[in-house]
This record gives sequence, structure tokens and C-alpha cells, in this order.
Amino acid sequence: MYAESALDRRTNELDNNAAAGGSASAAPPTLPEAPPRDLRRVPIHPDHWYPLAWSREVKAGRAHGVKFAGDPIVLVRTATGKIFALEDRCAHRQVPLNAGVVEGESIRCCYHGWTYDCSGRCVDVPYLGKERLPNGVRAYPCQERAGLIFVFPGDPGLADQKPLPEFASVADPKYKTRRLGREVKCHYSFMHENLMDMNHQFLHRKQMGMMRARSLGRRRGDDFVEVDYVFEREGGKQPVGEALVFGKDGGQNNKDVMTVRTGYPYQTLRIVSGSGTLVMDLWIAYVPLDAAQRTNRTFGMLSIRRPGVPLLLDAAWPLLVWFTERIFKEDREIVEMEQAAHDRQGEDWNHEVFPVIKELRDLLRQCGGRTVIPIQPVPAVQG
Amino acid sequence: MYAESALDRRTNELDNNAAAGGSASAAPPTLPEAPPRDLRRVPIHPDHWYPLAWSREVKAGRAHGVKFAGDPIVLVRTATGKIFALEDRCAHRQVPLNAGVVEGESIRCCYHGWTYDCSGRCVDVPYLGKERLPNGVRAYPCQERAGLIFVFPGDPGLADQKPLPEFASVADPKYKTRRLGREVKCHYSFMHENLMDMNHQFLHRKQMGMMRARSLGRRRGDDFVEVDYVFEREGGKQPVGEALVFGKDGGQNNKDVMTVRTGYPYQTLRIVSGSGTLVMDLWIAYVPLDAAQRTNRTFGMLSIRRPGVPLLLDAAWPLLVWFTERIFKEDREIVEMEQAAHDRQGEDWNHEVFPVIKELRDLLRQCGGRTVIPIQPVPAVQG
Amino acid sequence: MYAESALDRRTNELDNNAAAGGSASAAPPTLPEAPPRDLRRVPIHPDHWYPLAWSREVKAGRAHGVKFAGDPIVLVRTATGKIFALEDRCAHRQVPLNAGVVEGESIRCCYHGWTYDCSGRCVDVPYLGKERLPNGVRAYPCQERAGLIFVFPGDPGLADQKPLPEFASVADPKYKTRRLGREVKCHYSFMHENLMDMNHQFLHRKQMGMMRARSLGRRRGDDFVEVDYVFEREGGKQPVGEALVFGKDGGQNNKDVMTVRTGYPYQTLRIVSGSGTLVMDLWIAYVPLDAAQRTNRTFGMLSIRRPGVPLLLDAAWPLLVWFTERIFKEDREIVEMEQAAHDRQGEDWNHEVFPVIKELRDLLRQCGGRTVIPIQPVPAVQG
Repeated sequence: MYAESALDRRTNELDNNAAAGGSASAAPPTLPEAPPRDLRRVPIHPDHWYPLAWSREVKAGRAHGVKFAGDPIVLVRTATGKIFALEDRCAHRQVPLNAGVVEGESIRCCYHGWTYDCSGRCVDVPYLGKERLPNGVRAYPCQERAGLIFVFPGDPGLADQKPLPEFASVADPKYKTRRLGREVKCHYSFMHENLMDMNHQFLHRKQMGMMRARSLGRRRGDDFVEVDYVFEREGGKQPVGEALVFGKDGGQNNKDVMTVRTGYPYQTLRIVSGSGTLVMDLWIAYVPLDAAQRTNRTFGMLSIRRPGVPLLLDAAWPLLVWFTERIFKEDREIVEMEQAAHDRQGEDWNHEVFPVIKELRDLLRQCGGRTVIPIQPVPAVQG
Repeated sequence: MYAESALDRRTNELDNNAAAGGSASAAPPTLPEAPPRDLRRVPIHPDHWYPLAWSREVKAGRAHGVKFAGDPIVLVRTATGKIFALEDRCAHRQVPLNAGVVEGESIRCCYHGWTYDCSGRCVDVPYLGKERLPNGVRAYPCQERAGLIFVFPGDPGLADQKPLPEFASVADPKYKTRRLGREVKCHYSFMHENLMDMNHQFLHRKQMGMMRARSLGRRRGDDFVEVDYVFEREGGKQPVGEALVFGKDGGQNNKDVMTVRTGYPYQTLRIVSGSGTLVMDLWIAYVPLDAAQRTNRTFGMLSIRRPGVPLLLDAAWPLLVWFTERIFKEDREIVEMEQAAHDRQGEDWNHEVFPVIKELRDLLRQCGGRTVIPIQPVPAVQG
Repeated sequence: MYAESALDRRTNELDNNAAAGGSASAAPPTLPEAPPRDLRRVPIHPDHWYPLAWSREVKAGRAHGVKFAGDPIVLVRTATGKIFALEDRCAHRQVPLNAGVVEGESIRCCYHGWTYDCSGRCVDVPYLGKERLPNGVRAYPCQERAGLIFVFPGDPGLADQKPLPEFASVADPKYKTRRLGREVKCHYSFMHENLMDMNHQFLHRKQMGMMRARSLGRRRGDDFVEVDYVFEREGGKQPVGEALVFGKDGGQNNKDVMTVRTGYPYQTLRIVSGSGTLVMDLWIAYVPLDAAQRTNRTFGMLSIRRPGVPLLLDAAWPLLVWFTERIFKEDREIVEMEQAAHDRQGEDWNHEVFPVIKELRDLLRQCGGRTVIPIQPVPAVQG
């Protein structure tokens, strides 16, 4: 897309040791010392709203079990459509409430019939008097937006202060949105690093041809890192799938700018054309499922601006689906390889040279939970 | 089956904190303080006779490998029909003797041909002189009764003092017996609690309709707990399968009493009709297979009294099989959920409110082995 | 093959306690005290050449990932046919280089395109200047011989001093060679003991009939143990497959001698006929794959001398393949049983009575690595 120049190459060269890099104007002058904690053992911070299911997965009058970092949570939708979230265990014998029965505005455990309302209070034990009801289970703040069910797994007193994400493009008829989701067997941090480091275009060479990313600059705040890229094609022609998602190569006059941002704990990728139009808008979140946070469920909203010709995007949608699935598959495979290597090595051997990723890693450490994920890397022989 | 009254409901109400409950006459006035040990880490006590196989599983001239709490045991039936039990390992290179060859009254290891008699003595090493034979392996007391092969895995000196269970109904032509068996992935204690707490009828609502259990009283001894129940139907009609097993609902005059008893380490469930006839007699044992005692093999003998009409029970048997399988499947799924929850929680969060189950848990702790099952609950990441 | 005599039986009788045994002339007078280390936790010594792949598995212009004792190694064959071996990880994000692209005489990581030459040096990072290239990865000495790719995983400075194995029979047209290979789930030491202890003929009774091995003597050096055997048939007729591999039974005049040798870390089995001809020549190596060294990959070269009649051996080859596969399967199953027993028992309960195997075990401990394989035998309950 861009004419390559000696200057471009030089400004894109990166310092292996120093933090100065790119043409960033807002970048802080120095990076803090990298903390000694292993990024892959930093738990995600619970004091945020996390999507735990698609709205369509929780039908009226049904319960649905999900996980957040090993904690089982049951999402209940009552017959009236109201949704609530509780610990997914009966206070009695700890079996999952998601196997139970939704009755009115409460859920009844399938085993001995203990019943809980939306606040987690136990409101009935069939063989106990009402005056002797035991304690119930924990309730989680729960909200629905844009087809996602969000839960606040941390301190409930903070839920009101933390905003839910906005989904302007999803609601805007000028865009068509694809919902993406898949389990990926890696720590959420690999996902953030994968998307933010556009030097990994080589991975997608079969889908996208040989592209070179050039970072224009980066910005860092207390809870975000973002970076701007432009791209130039190094060889071959633009594949059709790519043209659909990213727009047609504009030749040397192309001025599309891609901005990738981690606004903890979410990530966005936006492409703005030379004329200032937002042509692609991706919002994505990576929710740890297991206690070791070695698996995440990815929830993505990919909004593409409709072109001038009506229904063109709809007609081409199957191709876009195929293209994004291929890209996602390649990314999934590579981050799972990274996780496997980390588990084998037992610590973080990552040798980063790209300043924006160094900052991203620093951000994820600073914004993450304060505990350390308890894993146990010794090769086990089952006795 | 029973007319519900306000009084019934009241006497059935249970105290969450105190031990007094039900209308038990023989219940002890106070329960001892619950010991701090986690019931799910109490190993079953080895100084009892445990069924390790059905007789038909060990054919003449064949060896059969089984497990007791992680210890491999080989059951050998010689050509003359005699049965004996040894450690299932060759003293030489530790391979299982069950892969070997039964020769006369002994078993020969398949690898280098070391041979053991019924006492575990090594009686031949093909390439060693008889005067230099090495030590053998441990033998276990072993007896056969009612189609079950029982082994005494504990101190052999105590085997004679401990009686084998009686199976009066199995031998009685007035009853027809179904043998039940299945591996269940949970600690044996969950099995005892499941069967004894008849408030879990809600779990079987699809098979049995809505039934309410009412406990008439409980008794406790050094090595047993038992409880009597009557049932009342709360809605719907009696399913046919249930009528077969438990007898037809008698309406308000029904006086059937069910007694569930844990006589350590076995369990029985008996239904006696208003006229004093034993209409159903279930004997059941839960044998831990693995060292962590997270899986048990269930051996059950379900004897049903034949009705007056000849062959009626035989004709209906397939329905009874189907019905009991469905019930057993629901119970298996729920106790496996309990075990999974316990493994995740790492300790016993059970919050019991039913006095008879509190007593049962106390009994299982007191009668169980004195060691603690070594488990390791930290999430493992395979290196 | 041999007439049995009382004398034969006597000289073959083995002492359970003393080291003196057989009619060995070169055997050392006393064995050292058995060291207390568990043989199954002795890692193989890395300062030797190990076959890690068959030549045909690494095609020109392709990379192939293998493992040595848990360490991932990538074998790269360039378009010109040259082969080299590197750590199988990119220095950047640790993903396997085997997923990368061979370019000229180097390999490029599939993710961000970092590139390494045959010495492991990083020679290109597409988005970094050449003057700022990061450190690369470790290279391993690598050689090809007789269709095997050998790697020296230990101290590279010692590679030149350690000879590669010779394969005289493989190159000799008077022999036909079968390549054998399979993964076996056990520590390499079980493999050595299995092959060297010919008293395990009982295991192969279905394939080979009842054979009795008699050891003629054994020899021991700093890095080898070897033992000579003759065989006598105890019953039945010689199977055809066996005649093909080992030659026809010669009746009482048979003077075939089998010599099994562990020349650390390899093993050979050779049969020399009464007339002094080498009729069978097996070379075999057991390469640990995982860090716990509980799985090995076996690489074997079985050379059979062609009989006088041309093409007879070729015609009979399928039968020979079938026969050797059956034998190998029986051996694999039994050593995997041994490993499983060891893992359960948590230590080495082996009770050896055969002096040559006692010496072999001593040799494997002395020649093995000095560390202890970190395993963890406690029964794990996944949280």
C-alpha cells in the first residue's frame, strides 16, 4: 500500500535494548524496569465486566453453566427474560445449579431441591421450615449488552464504577457485524500480544500475501497501550478475502491506518481510511476459563462498514467468514504453541525486541491481578 | 402414599444446627464434635471383606486382575474350581500375574515363568534351583458367596473374626435378584450419603414422580446408622417401573416402611409392607479402585419379592431393569458432580442439615481407615 | 538345539545373592555395592550420538521436529541436502522452528519471520536492522549414517571424541536389513534388560515354542556388558518364522551362539553359527522422548545373512516382518507393564537373580547421567 523508502525502514528499525522506538510522539521517555513476575502467571484482574456467554446461549427458563478463571458461574434466564448470575454450586452438596430447574424467578437444585433467588439467597429447602433456611450462594452483578452477557466477577461494590464496553458500530446499520468465538488453549496475554504485534503478518502469508507493517507511533496510559500501523505489500496481489475485510489496496496513495489498542482488559482493532472513515471495527475479549488460566474463551465483534453498493457485503459475507476463520485458526495454532512452549520451559523465555509489545507486557502485568497463578511445572507420572 | 398433615410437616422439619431431629426414639442425645478430617480423604477401612469381582468373571483355569484402593490383586481360579487371591505382581519384575498362565494349582508369570502357589510362595523359577527360590508375594484371604468373590485386603489375622455378609433373600426362591454393578467416579462416602438421604427423590422426579420422604426415626450404633422412611406422593400418578420395584401405591392406607442402613462398610435398603412382608431387599457395597479412592466399583444385589401370580415378575423384568438403570444413572451422574466439585474446592464444603446424614458422615469418619488419602489439589500444568 | 544334561542345568543355576554365576571367564570377581539410586530415574547420558530420525523422515527443503528427553530439536534438510539440528524454538516467542520455512541454507520462523542458519545464529529479523540482531538458538552436532540421523545432545566439545556406531552388516550385500522402529512407553533401561535376559523366552512361547536359554559366560568392561547364550528346544517343533530369523534348528549338533551386548548406550544381538558365520546382526538404540524418560523411540537395524539360494530371503521377507512384529509387540507390552508397575510402586522393586542382569543394571547406573529424573509419584487429582 505504501511506497517503501530508506527513511521508512530506518524509523521502523527497533532497538533490542532501549525502549525508544517507532515515531511515537506520546510514548513515555523510559520504560520501568520489567517486574520479575512471569507474565503467564499473572491472573486477569477480576474487577472488570467480562462477557461469559452470548445472549442466545441462555434461553428463557433455562440455566447455563460457564467458568471464569476456574470459578463456576451459572447464568439463569427466567421465563420473564430477566437474567442473573450466581455461583454455580448448591450450598448444600456443591453440585452445579446449572443442572437444576428454573422455577419462576428462582432456580431449584436438581438434587434435593434447594432453591435460590437472583440474589443467591436460599428461599426453599423442601424438607426444612422457612425459618431455618441455610445461607445461600454468592451472586454476581450481571448485565446484557449487544448480545453478550457480562458478569463482574470481582468486588461487586466496584461494578457500578466500571463501565460496560460500548458497541457503537454494532448498533450502527452502516456496519455489518460478525460474532466470533472460540476456545483457545493459552493465557490471555498471548492473545493480546498476537493481535498487537502486526509484524506477525508473515504467519498469514498464505491468506494475505507478503505484507509489511510499519508502526507510525504508539501511546500509553494507565490502563491502555495503542499503536498505529500502515501496511505495504511486498509481493503478489491482494487476495479477495483480505480486500473484503480490510478494503482494497489503494496503491501508493493508500492512507489506511490501523490502530490496535489494549484498553485493559479488552482489545480493539480499527482501520480508518485516508478519508477518515472507520472501515473496520473489531472489539475482542479473552476470558480465562480454567484456574490455571491456560485456556480462554474469545468473544469478538467484527464490524465491517458496508460499501456503497447495497447488499454487496451480504453477498460476500460467506467469503469473509471463511477468510476470518482461516486467519483465526492460524493465530490460534501459534498462540497454543507459545503456551505449550511456556509450560515446558516453566518460565517466560520471551525475548521481545518490539517496544510496543514490551509496553503491552508491562501494562498486562500492572493491570493484572496481584496473585500468582498456582501452577506446577514438574513432569508428573501418574501413580 | 400418605395423607399429608401439618403435624407430619412439622415433625419432618430439621434443625440446621442442632442434632435433634425427626421422631427418632433411639437417636443419641448429642452428636460428637465433627472431627476436622475431610471425609473425602478418609480411606475405606481395609479390615473387612470386600467383593472384588462377580464369580462369573473368573473362569476356571484363568486369572483376573482387580484393584482395591490402588492395590492390584489377581484372582485365580484353578482348573479344579478353587479360587485364591494374590498381589497382582511378579516378585521378579513386578509385571501383573493376571497376564500369566494358570498351571495346576499355581500361576506362572508370563515373562520369565516364575510360579506361585495359592499362598503366594514362589515354587518355581525355570532357571534357578529349587533350593534357591526367592520370596513370593502376598496372599489375601478369599471367599466366594452368592456369586461374589470376597477378599480381605487388611490384616489377614482378622479375617476369621469378621463375618461375610449374609444374602438370605438372594437364596430364597420367593425373591428374584438383579445384580447391579458399575464404576462410579467418586469417593465411596458420596454413595452412602446418596442412598441414605431420601430427600433426594427430587432428582428422580422424571422416573418416580414427585414423592416426599418422611423420616420416622433413626438408630445409631458403633458400626451402623439406619433410618426409616415413609413416602407420600405429591402429584401425578405412580409410574409402572416404580410400582414394580417398590410395589403399588396403597393410597392413604399404605404402610410400607423403607429402612436404609449403613452397616459399615456395606449398605442395605429394605422395604417392609404394612403386613410385615419384606418386599424389596437391596445389598450394596462400594469398593474403591484407585489409590485416591476417587472411583468405586459398585456391587449390588437387588432382591424383589415375587408376587402371587407366577412369572409375573419375570415377564416384567426388562422394565424393572430399565427402571433401575435409569435411577442408577441419575445417581451416578450426581455423585460424580459432587466429587468433581470437591476436587475443585479442595476440601469438604458440604453443608448438611439432615441429622441422619450428619450421623452417617460421622460414622464413615470413625469407621474409616486412620490414614489420609494423599491427593494433590493444585492445578497441574503438564511440563 | 542342545542335548540337555544334568551338568548343563547345574552350570545354569544362578545365585540369588552372589555375583558369581554361569561359566563366565572374564567376569569380575565381585560386583560393587548396588548404588541406592533408582535405575528408572537415571537419565540417559547425553554425551553420545543418538539417532533421532530416519533419513527418509527429513525431506529436502523441510524441517522435522523431534524430541530428546523432553528437549525439542528441529532437524533441517536444506534444498542442497545438507542437514543440521537446532533447538526447536524461536529465540523470540519460543514457538517450534519445525513449523517454519526452509529458505536456502537457513530456517525462518513461521510467526514473525526470525531466521537462523545452521549454527543457530539469528541472521534476519525482518523488522530489525542487521546490526541489531538478537542472539540465536543452540545448534547440535548432527551426522547421517546408514539411513539414520544422529544428534549429539550433550557437550558439543565431546562430539568428535565419541564415535558414531558402525553398521558393517547393513552395508554388506550378503545381508538384508530390516529397519524397526516404534515408540515404547517405558524407561530405556527396561529395553536393555528385556533383550539381554534370554530367560524371557517364555514370553514368546506362542511364536517360538518352548526354548531354554543357557548362558555360556559374560564379560564386563567400563562401558559394556555382554553375555553368550546357546538354546535348546524343550518341546514342539521350530516355527517357520523363527527359522528364518535365527536359522534352522541344527538338532544336537547345533552350535549357534547368541551374544547380547550393551555397549552404552546402544545394544546389539548377534548370532554366530557353529562354522563361525555371523547369521544375524541386530543393532538397536532406545532414545528417551519425554523429560520423565517414560517413553522411548526404538531405532533398530536387523540384518539377516542371505542364504545360498538367491532371492529366498526376499521371498520370505513378509513372513520375517510378521514374525519380528509379533515378537516386538510382546516385548513392548511387557516392558510397558513393567513401567506402569514402577510408576505405581514409586520405586524400583525389581528383584533380580540373574547375574548378567545385575551387572547390566549396574552398568546403566554408572554410565547414565548424574542427575535424577524429576518425577512426582503422588496420585494427582486435577483441580
